[in-house]
Amino acid sequence: MTLKDLTDLRALIAALPAPDDASAEAASDRQDNLVKPAGSLGRLEEIAIHLARWQGRERPSMDATRAIIFAGSHGMTRHGVSAFPDEVNAQMLAGFGAGFAAICQLTAAFGAELTVVDCGIDTPTEDFTVAPAMDETAFMTAVTLGMDAVRGNEDLLVFGEMGIGNTTAAAAVAMALFGGSPGDWVGPGTGVDDAGLARKADVIQRARITHGTALNDPLQALACVGGRELAAVFGACLAARRHRIPVLLDGFIITAAVAPLHSIAGTDGLSHALAAHQSGEPGHKRLLSRLGLDPLLSLGMRLGEGSGAATALGLVRAALACHNGMATFAEAAVAGKQDP
Amino acid sequence: MTLKDLTDLRALIAALPAPDDASAEAASDRQDNLVKPAGSLGRLEEIAIHLARWQGRERPSMDATRAIIFAGSHGMTRHGVSAFPDEVNAQMLAGFGAGFAAICQLTAAFGAELTVVDCGIDTPTEDFTVAPAMDETAFMTAVTLGMDAVRGNEDLLVFGEMGIGNTTAAAAVAMALFGGSPGDWVGPGTGVDDAGLARKADVIQRARITHGTALNDPLQALACVGGRELAAVFGACLAARRHRIPVLLDGFIITAAVAPLHSIAGTDGLSHALAAHQSGEPGHKRLLSRLGLDPLLSLGMRLGEGSGAATALGLVRAALACHNGMATFAEAAVAGKQDP
Repeated sequence: MTLKDLTDLRALIAALPAPDDASAEAASDRQDNLVKPAGSLGRLEEIAIHLARWQGRERPSMDATRAIIFAGSHGMTRHGVSAFPDEVNAQMLAGFGAGFAAICQLTAAFGAELTVVDCGIDTPTEDFTVAPAMDETAFMTAVTLGMDAVRGNEDLLVFGEMGIGNTTAAAAVAMALFGGSPGDWVGPGTGVDDAGLARKADVIQRARITHGTALNDPLQALACVGGRELAAVFGACLAARRHRIPVLLDGFIITAAVAPLHSIAGTDGLSHALAAHQSGEPGHKRLLSRLGLDPLLSLGMRLGEGSGAATALGLVRAALACHNGMATFAEAAVAGKQDP
Repeated sequence: MTLKDLTDLRALIAALPAPDDASAEAASDRQDNLVKPAGSLGRLEEIAIHLARWQGRERPSMDATRAIIFAGSHGMTRHGVSAFPDEVNAQMLAGFGAGFAAICQLTAAFGAELTVVDCGIDTPTEDFTVAPAMDETAFMTAVTLGMDAVRGNEDLLVFGEMGIGNTTAAAAVAMALFGGSPGDWVGPGTGVDDAGLARKADVIQRARITHGTALNDPLQALACVGGRELAAVFGACLAARRHRIPVLLDGFIITAAVAPLHSIAGTDGLSHALAAHQSGEPGHKRLLSRLGLDPLLSLGMRLGEGSGAATALGLVRAALACHNGMATFAEAAVAGKQDP
């Protein structure tokens, strides 16, 4: 995908393809005829129908499930916004390769492919308290990297992130898109204390003053106060939407990174996405609510790496096992519901 | 297991073995040293530590996971408390064998063994509006059947049930144990309308009058207004507790069936159990709250068969994949958290 500038990007977002509602309807009919009381699989039915809608088939699959982890590095970490040092970025990136991180174990547990994309951990973004994190060229490079990471033949995509300092970037993006005060959006992240929390709030307040009205535009906001991995997640989620591939959204950072799609295109922008897990990071609940998304899980996870979404792959497995494997009443010759 | 009467049963419940807190402590220490911020796997950590405590090893397993489904038939269905006819019991029992039911698909999806126990679907319990559902002999037979269904070498147990009418039995048991009015405990079950709901409330109100003070004793309550499959679930859960095997509790019916263990032995009685899923059946939330249990999932499922608990096997898989497969900071040589 070659995208010159923000204008090209806006043109793509203005031309999103429609989902396959006929397949969703067929899947819904199938659910109503399986040997169970109607609706009794609850949100497992919603998952199966969602995948049918976006895969364009009555009986969807998760055979080709893929998690893509985007890693970046943040100039504003100099202000002491994280409990961990920047060098952890490279160590964790090595760890993804070595297989010892949570996301490696979770993707293996559910038969998903794992790809890690280094968005430039050796070149931190600018310190966004004083300058845009990325200029337009750097932003478009990161968005394109994310778009190109999606092959287009996946059944289901999970996006994850790694980047010391990126809960602060996510909070700054969320505040730019949805307003409110820094205290509405900052949280403990990987585990900062109260002083660290105050520094996070101060950093995003300073960024608001530095960038002013540029933050009123969702894409410019992502460029000014996001990060390379957030921009790449945005690009990947847009590519998934264009390829009509269903997505499981992870936590606060991923949700903030894709939220500009909602700001620009309304609910249609993220209609291919299910919220997998409501993070322990307090801003996430507020953010999901603004996006009209109801998370499948709420387990207090706050690890990043796409781990919340990867955990929800267990629910997708359960949903598809029932949807594709159960018999209908007709096939099973079980007496249906009585007339009252 | 040979149990003569309620006195024998009470003696067993009075002598429950302690869990292995040292293994739980070792598992907790391991979690704190894995390459992630402390606590960042949220309730996945709780699951892993719970299994460690009850399996008695720092690194627990779910290789030998087993779901046992107990089926029964209820005399009070003559009062029109279910949307489905009694003949569905035999048809679903055949369906479990044929593999087309939800629980068959879910257990296969997560590599769990499935056993189905017919507790006597051809001999319905007495209509408990006029007589005890089971006399002491019938009750002890059902409890023993459940106890004997547990082999004792399982890593993890899921209990399920099938029995047209058994949400009404569960509501009656819950009301006997925890008080309140019929309206607090009855719900739509497999999908009765408002008139059916009123009939359910009426049936358990009449049972309360019929059985009077017998309902003050948790075991007699289960015998008087439960069902054979509920008594068997109680027995199986007691056997699991005695063998120190962790259990995932399914929905309203299973929770009501095991609740007498809590009424008799306090929180120790169900300390081996995690609540897997809060059912769409409205009484379940109230019941879990009375038992001090916080469900892992809340997906609006209300299918029975152990399907909510079997869905939570996906979370157990995720929890153990991380717990057993991730490296510690020392193993991975990743920089730990900075001092502030």
